[in-house]
Amino acid sequence: MSAYHPLNETEAIEIASKLDGVFEPGAQLACREIGDGNLNLVFHIADPAAGRSIILKQALPYAKVVGESWPLTLDRARIESEALILEGKLAPGLVPAVYLYDAELALTVMEDLSDHVIMRQGLMKGIRYPLFAGHISTFLARTLFFTSDLGHNQQDKKLLARSFTNPELCKITEDLIFDDPYRDADTNSFDEAIRDEAQALWSDGELHLEVALLREKFLTHAQALLHGDLHTGSIFITPESTKVIDPEFAYYGPMGFDIGAVLANLLLNYASREGWDKSDAERERYRDYLLETVADIWTQFEEKFLALWNEHGVDRLANAAPGYKEAYMRRLLQDTVGFAGCKMVRRVVGLAHVADIDKLEDASARERAQRLALRIGKSLIKLNRGAASIHQVIAAVQSASSAAKA
Amino acid sequence: MSAYHPLNETEAIEIASKLDGVFEPGAQLACREIGDGNLNLVFHIADPAAGRSIILKQALPYAKVVGESWPLTLDRARIESEALILEGKLAPGLVPAVYLYDAELALTVMEDLSDHVIMRQGLMKGIRYPLFAGHISTFLARTLFFTSDLGHNQQDKKLLARSFTNPELCKITEDLIFDDPYRDADTNSFDEAIRDEAQALWSDGELHLEVALLREKFLTHAQALLHGDLHTGSIFITPESTKVIDPEFAYYGPMGFDIGAVLANLLLNYASREGWDKSDAERERYRDYLLETVADIWTQFEEKFLALWNEHGVDRLANAAPGYKEAYMRRLLQDTVGFAGCKMVRRVVGLAHVADIDKLEDASARERAQRLALRIGKSLIKLNRGAASIHQVIAAVQSASSAAKA
Repeated sequence: MSAYHPLNETEAIEIASKLDGVFEPGAQLACREIGDGNLNLVFHIADPAAGRSIILKQALPYAKVVGESWPLTLDRARIESEALILEGKLAPGLVPAVYLYDAELALTVMEDLSDHVIMRQGLMKGIRYPLFAGHISTFLARTLFFTSDLGHNQQDKKLLARSFTNPELCKITEDLIFDDPYRDADTNSFDEAIRDEAQALWSDGELHLEVALLREKFLTHAQALLHGDLHTGSIFITPESTKVIDPEFAYYGPMGFDIGAVLANLLLNYASREGWDKSDAERERYRDYLLETVADIWTQFEEKFLALWNEHGVDRLANAAPGYKEAYMRRLLQDTVGFAGCKMVRRVVGLAHVADIDKLEDASARERAQRLALRIGKSLIKLNRGAASIHQVIAAVQSASSAAKA
Repeated sequence: MSAYHPLNETEAIEIASKLDGVFEPGAQLACREIGDGNLNLVFHIADPAAGRSIILKQALPYAKVVGESWPLTLDRARIESEALILEGKLAPGLVPAVYLYDAELALTVMEDLSDHVIMRQGLMKGIRYPLFAGHISTFLARTLFFTSDLGHNQQDKKLLARSFTNPELCKITEDLIFDDPYRDADTNSFDEAIRDEAQALWSDGELHLEVALLREKFLTHAQALLHGDLHTGSIFITPESTKVIDPEFAYYGPMGFDIGAVLANLLLNYASREGWDKSDAERERYRDYLLETVADIWTQFEEKFLALWNEHGVDRLANAAPGYKEAYMRRLLQDTVGFAGCKMVRRVVGLAHVADIDKLEDASARERAQRLALRIGKSLIKLNRGAASIHQVIAAVQSASSAAKA
């Protein structure tokens, strides 16, 4: 079973039964393949008698997107597994534990999180996660700081960056986030009702300049090891626990890209409230909760990142130069704001949407949500280089929201 | 002869005699080791009868700096050889031709440039090189543009950046240029006469902030494949020909670092004119020549870089976004100015100096040259983020020069 081939359930059980210290010897294991078959096989393997289970995830050598398949190297399984292991060391308890990685079979065996839900689903139901801002800000502060030149040996960081070279997955981001939405691309996908909005994106020169500058940062700024795809579909959650999953897009890039991804997905949910079948008051309260979470995440991130820097900073000059930390954090906020905006825009007119908005059944509510998401996204992109505090972001969202109502 | 060992002259001749199409079969080859023994063995191998010769350069597994040796991996020979070959493709005629690279022996066989002189030596004698600005601006524009995300396939660029991961040599730059001169470091070396200047560097917070920002760019901005050590000692020259050599510091970094290195070394020579035994008028004329060369290099670089971009730009959004090219070139100038300043400062107070100034025999002239070089360097560092044209650089040099006289 050494050469690569897609596993069947019997083989998956055989691998699981050999793991050290996971299942009892002789346990009767049950296995189901629960993946969507697009990129990976996902086996859920359980010992129901003992109440123990694990996930075995195997990369497939192609991706099914819009019907057609395109080839993807299995190296992404290595990147995902190595990123998970590193994130687990840096941010204990905030990613699933990894029990085994087999390079040849491109498989990773990890903690089963079936007791968690995908955060996007939870948000869509209007659930609140009061611990989330604390958890995700810790995850972001620790993974970004300790893989950056501020908190990691600067020679070893170069070797880390080398091992996380990830051209294939970066290409997806470069095209789908930083190019296609701003031209009449075949890959774009949007409701005919908002064609005017899509066309406006294609001819907005001011927006193109800002997106080009953000794209350049994505292409060239090797600041820290990013998760690279940190939307609310990459987060398993309960009211008590947060687990970040699926870092197959991991690479060395600009920190603000990860932070912005989290904020953007909260704001996409904010926009999706246009279609909520609850009272206006309840909608506003949930929106307030989302905005408070956005502000909390940034504020706590900044506080934790600076605390790590003060305690563990390895760059003498960066530690000591007057005004450097302030300038660094301001640029980080600006990047976060710009990337958040890009992430919102692409989820409305680009190839891959979010269920928060797409699943709204009422066409008029969906259209309102889409227009609001674009309005917020564009205003964040245009704000980015001028942003000086997270309150400006909140104000921009509220102002877009009021303008949409007018 | 497969395993690594330092070659002797007999072995060097044996390798040379086997090269295809370089020497005639049976030619009587003469060989001399002409290196300084610090980092590399350098064999000059000639067929005097036919008037043909080549250079065989072999890396040594250590570096002698300040008496003591420190280990260096032989991988730098691979990086140097691969960089030379790539630069030769991108900027034909502006680097020595490479005839052979042997990874195991860490050796590169290349064109002999004995008919050229090291540019620093030529400048020290007051020679003018009217074609230099044209040559070096072509070298810079073509090597930087075609290895960047603007002119190179963006997925392949990531693989190139990976293969030029160069932590050891980058560490030397990070310490000696971007840290030690700004603290009381053991590695620093300066004439006691200018201790006041050195101490002023250690406590200048405004300067530290700018250097920290430039250091960050050196650490994180993977814009293009740099030469990485492009001073006038890395350039072989005649009035008709320019050849860039020794790219062992090559890595993916900020373009301005290479451009700034060239300008800084011209300006160090400018400062060294304090000790020239010629008339005041002749000194001013040579200084004017140097300043014109500085302005020419930038102006021609910008023109050539933009022409390449217009013809060969691969990034749709960067090509099309209104104002992006202008913003890009302005930031590139700013980086160039800042890095030029850092390169000047370190050559006066840091570990490695330049002969232009160090070889001035008159102590008072040397001191004046050192103070002027520092004054120019610091003013460029403080100008960098505000620079909008190369004329500001020229004006800053002239103003530092007048202030030094006052």
